[in-house]
Amino acid sequence: MPTVLVLNGPNLNLLGLREPELYGSDTLADIEARCHVVAAHHGIEVDFRQTNHEGELIEAVHAARTGADAVVINAAGYTHTSVALRDALATLDIPVVEVHLTNIHRREPYRHRSFVAEVADALICGAGAHGYPLALTHVSHLLAKGAAS
Amino acid sequence: MPTVLVLNGPNLNLLGLREPELYGSDTLADIEARCHVVAAHHGIEVDFRQTNHEGELIEAVHAARTGADAVVINAAGYTHTSVALRDALATLDIPVVEVHLTNIHRREPYRHRSFVAEVADALICGAGAHGYPLALTHVSHLLAKGAAS
Amino acid sequence: MPTVLVLNGPNLNLLGLREPELYGSDTLADIEARCHVVAAHHGIEVDFRQTNHEGELIEAVHAARTGADAVVINAAGYTHTSVALRDALATLDIPVVEVHLTNIHRREPYRHRSFVAEVADALICGAGAHGYPLALTHVSHLLAKGAAS
Amino acid sequence: MPTVLVLNGPNLNLLGLREPELYGSDTLADIEARCHVVAAHHGIEVDFRQTNHEGELIEAVHAARTGADAVVINAAGYTHTSVALRDALATLDIPVVEVHLTNIHRREPYRHRSFVAEVADALICGAGAHGYPLALTHVSHLLAKGAAS
Amino acid sequence: MPTVLVLNGPNLNLLGLREPELYGSDTLADIEARCHVVAAHHGIEVDFRQTNHEGELIEAVHAARTGADAVVINAAGYTHTSVALRDALATLDIPVVEVHLTNIHRREPYRHRSFVAEVADALICGAGAHGYPLALTHVSHLLAKGAAS
Amino acid sequence: MPTVLVLNGPNLNLLGLREPELYGSDTLADIEARCHVVAAHHGIEVDFRQTNHEGELIEAVHAARTGADAVVINAAGYTHTSVALRDALATLDIPVVEVHLTNIHRREPYRHRSFVAEVADALICGAGAHGYPLALTHVSHLLAKGAAS
Amino acid sequence: MPTVLVLNGPNLNLLGLREPELYGSDTLADIEARCHVVAAHHGIEVDFRQTNHEGELIEAVHAARTGADAVVINAAGYTHTSVALRDALATLDIPVVEVHLTNIHRREPYRHRSFVAEVADALICGAGAHGYPLALTHVSHLLAKGAAS
Amino acid sequence: MPTVLVLNGPNLNLLGLREPELYGSDTLADIEARCHVVAAHHGIEVDFRQTNHEGELIEAVHAARTGADAVVINAAGYTHTSVALRDALATLDIPVVEVHLTNIHRREPYRHRSFVAEVADALICGAGAHGYPLALTHVSHLLAKGAAS
Amino acid sequence: MPTVLVLNGPNLNLLGLREPELYGSDTLADIEARCHVVAAHHGIEVDFRQTNHEGELIEAVHAARTGADAVVINAAGYTHTSVALRDALATLDIPVVEVHLTNIHRREPYRHRSFVAEVADALICGAGAHGYPLALTHVSHLLAKGAAS
Amino acid sequence: MPTVLVLNGPNLNLLGLREPELYGSDTLADIEARCHVVAAHHGIEVDFRQTNHEGELIEAVHAARTGADAVVINAAGYTHTSVALRDALATLDIPVVEVHLTNIHRREPYRHRSFVAEVADALICGAGAHGYPLALTHVSHLLAKGAAS
Amino acid sequence: MPTVLVLNGPNLNLLGLREPELYGSDTLADIEARCHVVAAHHGIEVDFRQTNHEGELIEAVHAARTGADAVVINAAGYTHTSVALRDALATLDIPVVEVHLTNIHRREPYRHRSFVAEVADALICGAGAHGYPLALTHVSHLLAKGAAS
Amino acid sequence: MPTVLVLNGPNLNLLGLREPELYGSDTLADIEARCHVVAAHHGIEVDFRQTNHEGELIEAVHAARTGADAVVINAAGYTHTSVALRDALATLDIPVVEVHLTNIHRREPYRHRSFVAEVADALICGAGAHGYPLALTHVSHLLAKGAAS
Repeated sequence: MPTVLVLNGPNLNLLGLREPELYGSDTLADIEARCHVVAAHHGIEVDFRQTNHEGELIEAVHAARTGADAVVINAAGYTHTSVALRDALATLDIPVVEVHLTNIHRREPYRHRSFVAEVADALICGAGAHGYPLALTHVSHLLAKGAAS
Repeated sequence: MPTVLVLNGPNLNLLGLREPELYGSDTLADIEARCHVVAAHHGIEVDFRQTNHEGELIEAVHAARTGADAVVINAAGYTHTSVALRDALATLDIPVVEVHLTNIHRREPYRHRSFVAEVADALICGAGAHGYPLALTHVSHLLAKGAAS
Repeated sequence: MPTVLVLNGPNLNLLGLREPELYGSDTLADIEARCHVVAAHHGIEVDFRQTNHEGELIEAVHAARTGADAVVINAAGYTHTSVALRDALATLDIPVVEVHLTNIHRREPYRHRSFVAEVADALICGAGAHGYPLALTHVSHLLAKGAAS
Repeated sequence: MPTVLVLNGPNLNLLGLREPELYGSDTLADIEARCHVVAAHHGIEVDFRQTNHEGELIEAVHAARTGADAVVINAAGYTHTSVALRDALATLDIPVVEVHLTNIHRREPYRHRSFVAEVADALICGAGAHGYPLALTHVSHLLAKGAAS
Repeated sequence: MPTVLVLNGPNLNLLGLREPELYGSDTLADIEARCHVVAAHHGIEVDFRQTNHEGELIEAVHAARTGADAVVINAAGYTHTSVALRDALATLDIPVVEVHLTNIHRREPYRHRSFVAEVADALICGAGAHGYPLALTHVSHLLAKGAAS
Repeated sequence: MPTVLVLNGPNLNLLGLREPELYGSDTLADIEARCHVVAAHHGIEVDFRQTNHEGELIEAVHAARTGADAVVINAAGYTHTSVALRDALATLDIPVVEVHLTNIHRREPYRHRSFVAEVADALICGAGAHGYPLALTHVSHLLAKGAAS
Repeated sequence: MPTVLVLNGPNLNLLGLREPELYGSDTLADIEARCHVVAAHHGIEVDFRQTNHEGELIEAVHAARTGADAVVINAAGYTHTSVALRDALATLDIPVVEVHLTNIHRREPYRHRSFVAEVADALICGAGAHGYPLALTHVSHLLAKGAAS
Repeated sequence: MPTVLVLNGPNLNLLGLREPELYGSDTLADIEARCHVVAAHHGIEVDFRQTNHEGELIEAVHAARTGADAVVINAAGYTHTSVALRDALATLDIPVVEVHLTNIHRREPYRHRSFVAEVADALICGAGAHGYPLALTHVSHLLAKGAAS
Repeated sequence: MPTVLVLNGPNLNLLGLREPELYGSDTLADIEARCHVVAAHHGIEVDFRQTNHEGELIEAVHAARTGADAVVINAAGYTHTSVALRDALATLDIPVVEVHLTNIHRREPYRHRSFVAEVADALICGAGAHGYPLALTHVSHLLAKGAAS
Repeated sequence: MPTVLVLNGPNLNLLGLREPELYGSDTLADIEARCHVVAAHHGIEVDFRQTNHEGELIEAVHAARTGADAVVINAAGYTHTSVALRDALATLDIPVVEVHLTNIHRREPYRHRSFVAEVADALICGAGAHGYPLALTHVSHLLAKGAAS
Repeated sequence: MPTVLVLNGPNLNLLGLREPELYGSDTLADIEARCHVVAAHHGIEVDFRQTNHEGELIEAVHAARTGADAVVINAAGYTHTSVALRDALATLDIPVVEVHLTNIHRREPYRHRSFVAEVADALICGAGAHGYPLALTHVSHLLAKGAAS
Repeated sequence: MPTVLVLNGPNLNLLGLREPELYGSDTLADIEARCHVVAAHHGIEVDFRQTNHEGELIEAVHAARTGADAVVINAAGYTHTSVALRDALATLDIPVVEVHLTNIHRREPYRHRSFVAEVADALICGAGAHGYPLALTHVSHLLAKGAAS
């Protein structure tokens, strides 16, 4: 069963507790639960993590080089500033899908630039917590296509 | 049964016939067919259209004010240049999901700016033809949530 | 009796139906009616049109070369993006007055730039629906001055 | 009878004496006279002033807080540079109409930016001396609407 | 006999009638006539069209995919703003030559940027009406080279 | 007893009367009173002034060269535009503390640039009326340090 | 007794040891000691920390959501680059005061931009080590005001 | 005998008293004295003034329209910010020479832009106090040439 | 028989020897030979030169003031950087046609700016070695037109 | 024997394993081995470290204040974004040499800016793994020169 | 007798022959003659040269290190582009005065930037041919001051 | 024995004579001598040249196409401005190493951009005169690697 690393960046541990009008009322645990349901449906396994440390995000990506078949990543604030994270993702040759809860194009200009997007296959943003199931569905689609070819 | 307008902009009629390494080998008819399947699965109806004319895109959006429950839009080249289309979409109070076949952040700088994104709820890009089913799934999720509340 | 072409661009057909806190509650028909009253007062005739198509705006301007004595134009979204419309207006040697319902300087930065303004004699913006009577009054003033000289 | 402060900024005392091909041949006294005629027609009173001092413009705006029912302002060169004047106008809750003799969008780039426009209801430019009667007509329209509501 | 589509954009129908000091006194019909003479000389056929509609330009380019052996295009005002037209031209694998009557580098800054140039083989500008014969001569040269190889 | 010039720029005479949600409900007289209390506490004297004229601000700074031991300055709108005021402050060799009621970094981009800051020792902003006592406390600290060394 | 988290970012552990002409000769321990004195004077408690890790700064801010009544923060180098820290601070609804030892407006251009300032109530910079007591005084003032209301 | 207005802007009254390493040790009175000597040598009269008020600079320029044959102007800090002063100078049709004590190109970027230069015939900067005699010499040369033609 | 100076800038002596996929396989001698053929056909003489020195390009242009009837210039790398060459060309009142082998708009951004274009009548780029015959044809057309008028 | 800290930033632990066409096939262990050889040759000791954490890089630099005689640093992705690392390096008064495997000027624009370079004595980039021996050679040269003086 | 090198850059050999409405009708020989007269008056010698080659300008500056007591330089087109010339001038420790015939601030934006100005003591522009005598007068003044000190 | 062209640009002939605090006290002859020593050590020959002329630099690069096995280049001031030199270097398929005495990233912004770097394999800057031996060592390393493969 293929494994998908779902990687969450800084402040996402507070999801549901802060600014619900902006980020929704689901907690990260709610999202993780939903991810496992969707993953089961698609016959994939989910490895769901969160960290506030840029270096840990980078090392989780390194680990995915051998330990995962795809990555779904919401790098939160590091999305817009981390060349180092971008370089880590560039070392992968498995599918990478970028997720954001909000539509980053409707927020401050510095959120319009994504270093992750430079090396991600697809981007899903503005779909709130539902963006994670969509991303898993897409990853599953890509893995199926890859397996078929 | 709710209706979703799936609106396609300029050059998308050539899909599958041009630059397949960039846009994939599915034709627009293939995508439309897949949309109907996904829509049936979600209990929604799809009104699928394509036009190369900015004015017709605008008028299709106007028509959606009374004739549709949600809009999925791939405005192609007009995405990056049409304030008029943006203003048309701003008159809607139904869900709007923006789709692009390619990850627009990995292409020329002028494709990083989207006028559609300013008024769209969600954005899905870089998922190729599969972006349409994802968008319909999200729209269906939003309509269900709206109906439930 | 001199004729003034009053030309309206994309989305203005929805006036009064959308975002009334931004654009007011008058419909375009209300504005047209008021224009005819003001025109009658000044002894001029008004040819009032709206289109969502950039090409039709251009061709209406071409027609005004022989069929009108002045142009009042609210190019809406095309104001900020259409070099082609600007070039059409540049072929006229009759008075051109630009109108916008809202004060374009108080909105998004991309609305601060007007290609129409480069070739218009005067600009009236932020006066809401009343901007049209003001524009007709000014056009009538210009035509009277021209006739007198 | 409502009072409208018509405020003129630097160098406007030279009107008619300098660069007539740019600013027209009317003197400021001519314009003032015309304003009184138009004001009488609309049943309003005009308080017409000119100063070359930024500080005096600011203080005239302060005085209008209690002494006027609307402001028509041509801030001339200070339009493009005075944050202080903008802040003074922001303290008003009466109608403010900005006027310029020339179409500021057709001149040097630094004239395209107006600090006054950020806090003015409407802008009329490029109508020459006739811009003042248009502005008074609009102010009178706004005062009538306000009185009616 | 190879066919060359000569495609003309907005306002070019007014050629010779407007701003002759800028665009010359030849009408578009004059240019078309000259194109047929030059084409005959080179043993090629010319399909000469003009439209003011961006969408029609795009569709004419689509038609050229099967109906022409080369394209000469003067996109006029759309040159500088149309990503959609650029994308249409990018689907061609036949020679494309861009023409402008004036030297676009000596005009307003927004005319220095050409979206057409990104996908055109060659650019000829500033040669007035004579630019069309030059472009046909070049196209004929390219077709001959292609046939020889 | 050392004297501190507390200098206030344009529109600050309206404090408490305008936009209280932005600037608070204290009047400038309230602030002056509080300054005298704080000054007495620190054994310093306060010379408190306000003017709407850039030239008078400059001349007050000139006077401080011999008449004051430190300057606390809230230049309001001139903060962002006055090179002349900056040059006046540059001639001082006594402590200068810049104060703003609001946090200028959270407002319009043109308020992020401060010419005063280039020549001020310290900046206190966003502390509302309380910023003045803080500034006096700091000035008193600097004067004490200077006296001790 | 209310608690104030005083949070210090990277390199501040070297204070007094490096570049004293820029940052002064006080060590961070000196500052902490002074903070406790000032805090005692105001009847508040100080929780004083320093870390060189962005992730730890973020987590300290998270902890302050329940463990502190206000935050004084000198984010040092992360001030200018950390969107993630900004987002952490945005989750707080207690007073936040930003402190810098130097006047950041007089240093390199990249130090003029502060992500912390976007979400801080007040900013005190250029006051050297004395900025901390000033910040605590202000925080105490805000807490007293809040308690009174 | 022709009269030359020598106009000095803000802070120049402090010349010789402030920053002598930047501006030299001559006072403005020294410069005025030297100007009278040079003027006498060239058979011209000098009207030498200084003001810290932008409005007074503007009005001095207005007065020069009838009361002077040429203007030498050192607008100091207003050089870089005053559109209003530029507009005043633009009304003159007599020679205007701009002077600065320092070479403005070697100082802060905002001093590289001069609004005065847009309307001045010549610019002399970096020559210190000697720039005034040079300017008078040039004005005298221009007046002689004008008289001869 | 009119003479056309065909002037070639730096590195063009290596044509055909370097980067043939970019510049083609023709040598400069091949191009010169072809120019003589085309010139003979049009009854003009060609003076064909190449230099790697900016100063020699400038002096060749100076010589063309009396020694040539038109100039065809490929300034290569100096195109984008030489104000001095632009100023030399500005002294000519004979036709100037700019040529580049590649389409400069499809290369690095710094090649999009041409100082030569500011003073050239026409520009032909992207036509490879064939651009020279096209330029000579155009020059011959201009000379014929000039002779006829 | 002097000690040189050779500090490696994020993702360098993957060297040789990722993108060999960009970074070469040497692993970091290979480079470390080579460094020890070169160091032995020059009579210096090498302390070779790698971390993916910005905070650890900063603290390693702090430790070098007393524990090393020079620093060779390849900060990888943090090079372009870390003001905090720059500030750490600024506290050193020993030689600092910056190394990059690739020529950062030939890559994405955001890699052209180096915060490390602001405080490094020398920069060696584009020399691949060989850049480390070169840097050590240079450091040894500097230490020898320092010892000699 | 001190020697002043008067150095003239590209195209100045054409002075008087080209664009007299811009540069005046004096030839360079006329200017040289006038320089000798002025120099004689001031007891200095003039070494007057012109070259179109950047390298020769640089070498003339090198020669001035031992062969001249001051430099007057009109670098014409190289003024705005030559870092190499700037670096040559930076090696001098004798007075350098920059001259331009026209007021470079009233011309194209790329002429507003002067690399020469970064290393010149004074700048005189817009004074036409008379700028040279003014520059020599200033140099003589500086040499006298230097000799006196 | 392979030959390395060591090419030096403008003003480097003055090395050791000018600004020693910036460029060091070694003369170019000293550097050349050291290069020969290092070259002998590596079994390579050095062809060491200097010129102040951009055209001669270009031609020396051309000659290196057949006459050298590698190039070490310090283009000095032309580094930042010469597209022509860049194009010359682009024709080489031998190793190119760029050298600068100073760290160009710590100097004026216009020195941060290097046209040479676009086509150089490696860059060594800030190592003073020692940069040349480092560059030769690297070139020798590259030549050895090339010979071995």
